[in-house]
Amino acid sequence: MDNRPIGVFDSGLGGLTVVRELLARLPGEDLVYFGDTGRVPYGTHSPETIARYAAQDSRFLQNHGVKFIVAACGTVSTTAPQVLAELPVPAMGVLEPAADAALAATKNGRIGVLGTSATVRSGAFDTYLKSKQPVEVFSQACPLFVSLVESGWIERDNEATVAVARRYLQPLREQGVDTVILGCTHFPLLTPVLSDILGEDVTLINSGAACAARCEELLREQDALCDRDREGVCQFYVSDRPQGFSAVADMFLGRRVEQDIHRVNLEDMDRV
Amino acid sequence: MDNRPIGVFDSGLGGLTVVRELLARLPGEDLVYFGDTGRVPYGTHSPETIARYAAQDSRFLQNHGVKFIVAACGTVSTTAPQVLAELPVPAMGVLEPAADAALAATKNGRIGVLGTSATVRSGAFDTYLKSKQPVEVFSQACPLFVSLVESGWIERDNEATVAVARRYLQPLREQGVDTVILGCTHFPLLTPVLSDILGEDVTLINSGAACAARCEELLREQDALCDRDREGVCQFYVSDRPQGFSAVADMFLGRRVEQDIHRVNLEDMDRV
Repeated sequence: MDNRPIGVFDSGLGGLTVVRELLARLPGEDLVYFGDTGRVPYGTHSPETIARYAAQDSRFLQNHGVKFIVAACGTVSTTAPQVLAELPVPAMGVLEPAADAALAATKNGRIGVLGTSATVRSGAFDTYLKSKQPVEVFSQACPLFVSLVESGWIERDNEATVAVARRYLQPLREQGVDTVILGCTHFPLLTPVLSDILGEDVTLINSGAACAARCEELLREQDALCDRDREGVCQFYVSDRPQGFSAVADMFLGRRVEQDIHRVNLEDMDRV
Repeated sequence: MDNRPIGVFDSGLGGLTVVRELLARLPGEDLVYFGDTGRVPYGTHSPETIARYAAQDSRFLQNHGVKFIVAACGTVSTTAPQVLAELPVPAMGVLEPAADAALAATKNGRIGVLGTSATVRSGAFDTYLKSKQPVEVFSQACPLFVSLVESGWIERDNEATVAVARRYLQPLREQGVDTVILGCTHFPLLTPVLSDILGEDVTLINSGAACAARCEELLREQDALCDRDREGVCQFYVSDRPQGFSAVADMFLGRRVEQDIHRVNLEDMDRV
């Protein structure tokens, strides 16, 4: 039993899709969320820049006494896994749980991966999936999806979003994939649009949901769940204007954020 | 006469549209360009974050002994003008030259402004334009345009880009503007798409071109042009992968970048 909080970080708001699942699965746990909104997006940056940010984000959470760290960011999980492996607290990303869920779901062995440019360049999903099963993997970088989601353009009748998604998904449709990993935690918000284009025979893997399920499993195995019988406390930290965060956070979280959103100074991040 | 280089900075690649115009107007001048590709985009951040970045970018150029600094970034020009005003070397942004060009062009006194979220939130174009002439100003934040341009999705038959642009431009069309300021230096690359939607009766103001023209004027007034009769030397610095820069820079610059692109470490930026 361990009553310390779980720490979750992301480049911005996408990681809240993981928080949403954690709240549903483990309502008693305290959570500390850090969204690096002052430096979002990570997905267009180099692996070195992303690793530097991931190390700072993790140290920030460690300074809040967390028992476990979730890198709820597809870009960090795929381009800077070594940062997570070297932390003094247990940590995980979204890659393995999402990939394992895809391997369990596919029938024809043809898996699509949607991610940021950095994620696709890393080839990490491809490498992991093929190390487990002889599958075919088709990856597509979707750099505009993060901006579309952060703009709130997620309705299935938004012509612009549909046009962007059609362009990204066309190559995957031509390859006949039956399973598609949403390899960035922003992408689950686009599920209605993506399903309309891919059709109901294609299974979409929500990397946030897969990651939260694995997190619960690991904490249970390590006997590190809390033993509280009240609802846990969530603390939210961001590195840019809290106003911008509140406006969109409700959409990701599926419920109103009532708490104060704390602002972290980026100068301090460089020193943590 | 002053043979020191002109310094130009931007959050990323957009500022190269200003460099392109400077090379055409002042081929003998040496140029130092800094593109903060490690922290692009600026336009979704708070004024404080943008001011901090702008001060660092300016100090970086000062350390290269420049005689004049051009903030070739609509976001910096509109949200952090105080940073430019307080520099020990003369500096300018894109706001005034672009706004003055719009005031000279409009016939019906109805001016549209397209910018990043930060630019539109600042209200800087609105304030400046109205302080000069009694005009009506209609502003539209276009946060997806920067990503579209950096993705190279600029062709006039790109359905996704056209759909995004239609959505942003619809309110301006309804207001009957006859002049539209492209208040971000990325946006001139979208001119064919924007012209198709707005029609040929609407004048588009390229803030990069207006800014380069003003820069030449100011240097001439201050007798600070160089007296070289050979072609000047351009140096390019970026804060993320040079590979990514080269691939898209040609498109902005309208010619091949033959030079080496130098990588600047962001840890060092925080210390300059």
